[in-house]
Amino acid sequence: MAKELTGRAENYSQWYNDIVNKAGLAENSAVRGCMVIKPYGYAIWEKMHEALDKMFKETGHQNAYFPLFIPKSFLSREAEHVEGFAKECAVVTHHRLMVSPDGNGVVVDPDAKLEEELVVRPTSETIIWNTYKNWIKSYRDLPILVNQWANVVRWEMRTRLFLRTAEFLWQEGHTAHATREEAIEETFKMVNVYAKFAREYMALPVIVGHKSEGERFAGALDTLCIEAMMQDGKALQAGTSHFLGQNFAKAFEVQYATADGGLEYVWATSWGVSTRLMGALIMAHSDDNGLVLPPKLAPIHVVMVPIFKSAEEHSAIVARMEEIKKEAEALGISVTIDDRDNLRPGFKFAEWELKGVPVRIAMGPRDLAAGMAEVARRDTLTKESLPQEGLAQTLRNLLDEIQDNIYRKALSFRDEHVIKVDTWEEFKEKIEEGYFLLCHWDGTAETEARIQEETKATIRCIPIDSYVVEEEGKCIYTGKPSQRRVVFAKAY
Amino acid sequence: MAKELTGRAENYSQWYNDIVNKAGLAENSAVRGCMVIKPYGYAIWEKMHEALDKMFKETGHQNAYFPLFIPKSFLSREAEHVEGFAKECAVVTHHRLMVSPDGNGVVVDPDAKLEEELVVRPTSETIIWNTYKNWIKSYRDLPILVNQWANVVRWEMRTRLFLRTAEFLWQEGHTAHATREEAIEETFKMVNVYAKFAREYMALPVIVGHKSEGERFAGALDTLCIEAMMQDGKALQAGTSHFLGQNFAKAFEVQYATADGGLEYVWATSWGVSTRLMGALIMAHSDDNGLVLPPKLAPIHVVMVPIFKSAEEHSAIVARMEEIKKEAEALGISVTIDDRDNLRPGFKFAEWELKGVPVRIAMGPRDLAAGMAEVARRDTLTKESLPQEGLAQTLRNLLDEIQDNIYRKALSFRDEHVIKVDTWEEFKEKIEEGYFLLCHWDGTAETEARIQEETKATIRCIPIDSYVVEEEGKCIYTGKPSQRRVVFAKAY
Repeated sequence: MAKELTGRAENYSQWYNDIVNKAGLAENSAVRGCMVIKPYGYAIWEKMHEALDKMFKETGHQNAYFPLFIPKSFLSREAEHVEGFAKECAVVTHHRLMVSPDGNGVVVDPDAKLEEELVVRPTSETIIWNTYKNWIKSYRDLPILVNQWANVVRWEMRTRLFLRTAEFLWQEGHTAHATREEAIEETFKMVNVYAKFAREYMALPVIVGHKSEGERFAGALDTLCIEAMMQDGKALQAGTSHFLGQNFAKAFEVQYATADGGLEYVWATSWGVSTRLMGALIMAHSDDNGLVLPPKLAPIHVVMVPIFKSAEEHSAIVARMEEIKKEAEALGISVTIDDRDNLRPGFKFAEWELKGVPVRIAMGPRDLAAGMAEVARRDTLTKESLPQEGLAQTLRNLLDEIQDNIYRKALSFRDEHVIKVDTWEEFKEKIEEGYFLLCHWDGTAETEARIQEETKATIRCIPIDSYVVEEEGKCIYTGKPSQRRVVFAKAY
Repeated sequence: MAKELTGRAENYSQWYNDIVNKAGLAENSAVRGCMVIKPYGYAIWEKMHEALDKMFKETGHQNAYFPLFIPKSFLSREAEHVEGFAKECAVVTHHRLMVSPDGNGVVVDPDAKLEEELVVRPTSETIIWNTYKNWIKSYRDLPILVNQWANVVRWEMRTRLFLRTAEFLWQEGHTAHATREEAIEETFKMVNVYAKFAREYMALPVIVGHKSEGERFAGALDTLCIEAMMQDGKALQAGTSHFLGQNFAKAFEVQYATADGGLEYVWATSWGVSTRLMGALIMAHSDDNGLVLPPKLAPIHVVMVPIFKSAEEHSAIVARMEEIKKEAEALGISVTIDDRDNLRPGFKFAEWELKGVPVRIAMGPRDLAAGMAEVARRDTLTKESLPQEGLAQTLRNLLDEIQDNIYRKALSFRDEHVIKVDTWEEFKEKIEEGYFLLCHWDGTAETEARIQEETKATIRCIPIDSYVVEEEGKCIYTGKPSQRRVVFAKAY
């Protein structure tokens, strides 16, 4: 495998596509806009799934599964929701194929038309709230804290692997609460779970904040989000948590008997992250040699490459590697010995670099004799000779250091690329150079829309945990008064 | 919650539905034939998923993800496959809804008709082999050992929760091999993985065997299966593993360069189990009090119910329970303390029995003072007073014993209900009484079809690991010569 990656500086977009393809993460399928997630890519997603699922359960949530299909009429129950989701979607109209009258292939059986068309779920609020209607009678049935891991379909016109695909995998939490306060608390709790996951597992220093009204989820009263910065200075929305008020409860008539005998509509939240996170992970950390994976999400932590001439050398080195592997595995380190006999070490090195394996160990006859091993880091591309004695523990520490270093590197990059801007001229200039801009904004959707028209920048969030600037100021575009700065950026 | 379960003897079918509903496992949704898997049911499926996934990985398989949609034309590529699967399926014909011209709700946008209709996957051989075509060039690319966890849709007319639903969850393994022998070996390996899982986790004493030609998967040269016996003596096919020969490789033109420079079609297998296993689990072990779960698949192993009058008693007992819970959890035992203050102990006992929790512990003030606890087994409905000292370890052993006992009970039941039958009169009589019949059969599809017409019994399998009877005999129906007995039964 020759690397032949396009460089980031040359063509960032092509660089991303090259990594996705050449590292064996995903590829386009025969179905427009739908991807095949290849084993190596899926293994990373499994690690994300596992870590998130654990965090959801630790915060009291249970998983369940709801139908893939949603009756068409459900989508129009919630007024804003229909605007947001009843558009580009996959519509099932028939339930049978038949052999073509001309005998060639199959055609849709016109007699098998559904009475009501079904939409492949673009998100599941409607079908879930229609179900909750039967689950919720009294305050004793609340809260309901349910999550679903599922595939969803939104018929996007322009698709990109992981970032925007017609079908994608995700999780969607849907909770029901007795009070507004409790639902709001849940909304914040879950965006913070996402932020923690992004920072600690993905090594992504995300910014947490509120979406502006224009960028809210269709049907939400408030949308919280985590926003990540990519290496081109563009933003990627990596997760959202919505306070839905009583909108879906009212649309589906979900009321509960209160402790004192009243009847109230239920309060709702929903929150989700998707395989889009894969795109964020790839774009945030990788370099011109390929993928760079934070150890906590790497399917393989350490690859060992034997360097040998004779069969004797080979078997002695591999035997030693097997011993070290066993010790490392006991410390929770996943190790692959690349024992392929038809490839040269240099080729293997390049391939594992491309695949982002955090640590590579090479061992030749002289290393073996000296009790040493050459240990190379993927994140810094540095290497050093280390003693085999105690190597497993050394690796354990090194992996933690790499996880930390990848985060710190991304954090420095971000901090260098978030700037305060106070004039429209500077805004236009800096947004083109790939910065997140901390600006005053007059709070109107109209201004936001105009800024987007002129610059393609959108309000990524009104930050609540970093870059919070509560101060008097003037809107960058209209000059009207503003109480706080918000984050503008171009986005994926 | 009153139990109010229909008894098995009264109406087996209604008993099953009652358990699924009242134990909170699943329910019908607003979409015909699609179920909602409720949190408690989904937690059992997660345990199955986890155990199977581990076994797949231990046998060298990796997970991946392929598109939900299959272009209509793909289904007709493999001649038998189109017969089997291009029939009752969900067909996507459009990709957009629009606001209805009358302003009420949404309608399908006639301008958004797809050029080629897409079918929601009923199974993924076609889309996967169309993908493998690009993955396989040389013998070095083989084998491919890939599994997918996914939802699939088959538009069944008559549906039953878990047993037959329009949408269901499953895993489908799809492997590609250089030789016929290797593919056949994989087919056997995976049916044995299923048998091991069924026996060790589900406590189901399944019979492993070949399907007759008439019962084979559409497109397979051989189908191996595991067949389980339910308490009404009917069979439930719990998993299948197919040797697909070169059928899909030929349909999708997948060839590989051999080591000596030739070009050969690739050999294939596929294998799957689904949420149907939930149905098997419920029907095999449960009783008139509700669900009975083997501990290895129980989301909650032990429920603790405090018996108290005063608040002081309550807090002292719950404090002691928390201690025992902690010790038990350290041994991998999942414990719930049912601390609800609005329900009487008897009600709680009935509810946890209904939900099949393997062990129930009750503790009152006198137990507390005496250092004892009342431990009740769900499988035998017996209880005894046991010392709190060392209780965690006692529970660990008890859970293993319960797992074992549930299996042995099912095995005895099965062995009592598998009988050799040699006359047609006896066949007709015994099949009505709920037996698996070991009979001679002349090997023709015609005879099999006639027997099914007359009795509704089908050949469940030609057994290969239990009830193997290789002997000369005469077909139960035609009297023609036969070399071995096969298993006939009515089936779900």
